[in-house]
Amino acid sequence: MTSVCIALDAMGGDHGPKVVVPAALNALASYPNLQLILVGNREQLEQQIRLSAGNGQSRLIIHEATQVVEMGDPPAVALRQKRDSSMRVAINLVKDGVAEACVSAGNTGALMAIARFVLKMLPGVDRPAIVYSLPSMTGHVHVLDLGANVNCEPQDLFQFAVMGSVLASAVDNNPRPTVGLLNVGSEAIKGSLQVKQAAELLEKNNCGIHYIGYVEGDDIYKGTADVVVCDGFVGNVALKASEGLAKMVLKMAREEFFKSWYGRFAALIASPILRSLSKRLDPSRYNGASLLGLRGIVIKSHGNAEQKAFGMAIRVAMLEVEKNVPEKIQKQLATQLGHLQAV
Amino acid sequence: MTSVCIALDAMGGDHGPKVVVPAALNALASYPNLQLILVGNREQLEQQIRLSAGNGQSRLIIHEATQVVEMGDPPAVALRQKRDSSMRVAINLVKDGVAEACVSAGNTGALMAIARFVLKMLPGVDRPAIVYSLPSMTGHVHVLDLGANVNCEPQDLFQFAVMGSVLASAVDNNPRPTVGLLNVGSEAIKGSLQVKQAAELLEKNNCGIHYIGYVEGDDIYKGTADVVVCDGFVGNVALKASEGLAKMVLKMAREEFFKSWYGRFAALIASPILRSLSKRLDPSRYNGASLLGLRGIVIKSHGNAEQKAFGMAIRVAMLEVEKNVPEKIQKQLATQLGHLQAV
Repeated sequence: MTSVCIALDAMGGDHGPKVVVPAALNALASYPNLQLILVGNREQLEQQIRLSAGNGQSRLIIHEATQVVEMGDPPAVALRQKRDSSMRVAINLVKDGVAEACVSAGNTGALMAIARFVLKMLPGVDRPAIVYSLPSMTGHVHVLDLGANVNCEPQDLFQFAVMGSVLASAVDNNPRPTVGLLNVGSEAIKGSLQVKQAAELLEKNNCGIHYIGYVEGDDIYKGTADVVVCDGFVGNVALKASEGLAKMVLKMAREEFFKSWYGRFAALIASPILRSLSKRLDPSRYNGASLLGLRGIVIKSHGNAEQKAFGMAIRVAMLEVEKNVPEKIQKQLATQLGHLQAV
Repeated sequence: MTSVCIALDAMGGDHGPKVVVPAALNALASYPNLQLILVGNREQLEQQIRLSAGNGQSRLIIHEATQVVEMGDPPAVALRQKRDSSMRVAINLVKDGVAEACVSAGNTGALMAIARFVLKMLPGVDRPAIVYSLPSMTGHVHVLDLGANVNCEPQDLFQFAVMGSVLASAVDNNPRPTVGLLNVGSEAIKGSLQVKQAAELLEKNNCGIHYIGYVEGDDIYKGTADVVVCDGFVGNVALKASEGLAKMVLKMAREEFFKSWYGRFAALIASPILRSLSKRLDPSRYNGASLLGLRGIVIKSHGNAEQKAFGMAIRVAMLEVEKNVPEKIQKQLATQLGHLQAV
């Protein structure tokens, strides 16, 4: 088993080292081929390591960084005024080939801007996309873009389709993942101009991608396609609306179960079933969004991720390193672009 | 109590007269001030009335229409080739002042096109919007647009905000409903150009609307605002994604409860609680979307609505008639437009 080295922005997210350090130690204990570099304030990190029990500390390195990108920092501030931030230094380690991937729970806009500036885009990709794996009735679905790009050209959606298809194929061992374009109806006449033109590009250049046409919002969770493509505005709203609905249902369920003694009794009886259900839907199982289209692997963890969820993001980074995702995207895009130019 | 007369497109939707007729008879029994006009094939309607038990038949009139708009008919076909469709005739009855509102479960695109052509827009409104009431943690929220307009100008979003505010104020007896603009973040720098410009219009012309700024996808269900404004593409995807997630959770819950004998026992014990929960979330309670901005009241029922849900759509139409919604929108818009021109 070849070893994998990942840099962690240890100061990022709502919890910083308190979550990142124990998650790191836990991952090291689980994966003997894993090496981790904790980037951040040495003193805080050493203190947190002492507090956290864990094996594999020999495969853990601390790399000092003096600054922290705050959740409210605009991307330009993070990029220009925080050149020694834990986020920037972690990405530098990927650029310099010291680490093969980095994971950060920090500010998405800043992460995107720094990653793009430091690592650069793959040839043929105009904009990076955030791709997230969500649960579906048939397993899971990769949705992109989830917020990196609020306005997209048809060409961008086409590139997202190619990148998403390569990712799904690599990480799911799925030789022919289905790709759907998110729209407000399945008929050809429906939708915005941008989506219709993207559909045309996908239909004309259907080489290597298994494009299945338009899908609608409910298809995300039906498992109609392995990859769902949309612009970042639509994707972000759909994801957050889903989160909001899930939280509301959970809150109402708690209210119903706890408003009477009979309800409390029923909750007790049903608890093994409810636990098993919430395990299937547990958002921490799906933590770790990829920033696709970069010359390197950057994984975004949810800002308020707890230890288990941050561990999932480390797992996603490992998988993309093992499957060599950026190189595969580059190859596929080169083929696609060849076709596009030939058309 | 003044009487209210509503025309029903009795042939529309997936179920046609089989749902519309019993729902109509049921509504007549519940509301002694209600008069209904069933529009469609007389023979089929009379047969269905004989089959359905119900009071109030003296307040029920059949109005013959020889054509039916099919769910797959493009708007142009419905508009030009089906001038005697049940949908068109029901809307004509509103235009002619015979009915004060109409309800249809038919094809949304066709309904929108015919309503716009026959009734015309209110002065100052460029495009109609579909507004839907959704459950939220604090009660319910009015979201618009939910699919009528896939591309919107900032001016359209501004008009949606005014119309949504008037609707919420009228039907909820809420003197100062809060209005949020759906975006991908709450900071001023986030979002598409269209949304930023709409925010500017709302901030500059904050006369009569209680505009609270940007809201995100999860705010829909949190109850952060009484009215959430977005373009039809985003609204449609968010609504359908929510529906899809809800269905998936329900399916998984069934699987978990029914995969073992213990689970079946737990389901039995928990059934009063689960029933009470699903009653709170029951989509049929929220059926009946308004087409706002027209010179008349048109309510769209879900295509696959059952009797109870169609009855809710009739109730929504009654409420808008009683509250005189189009006239209130017209007044508010006249004020807003005066302000806009004065700026």
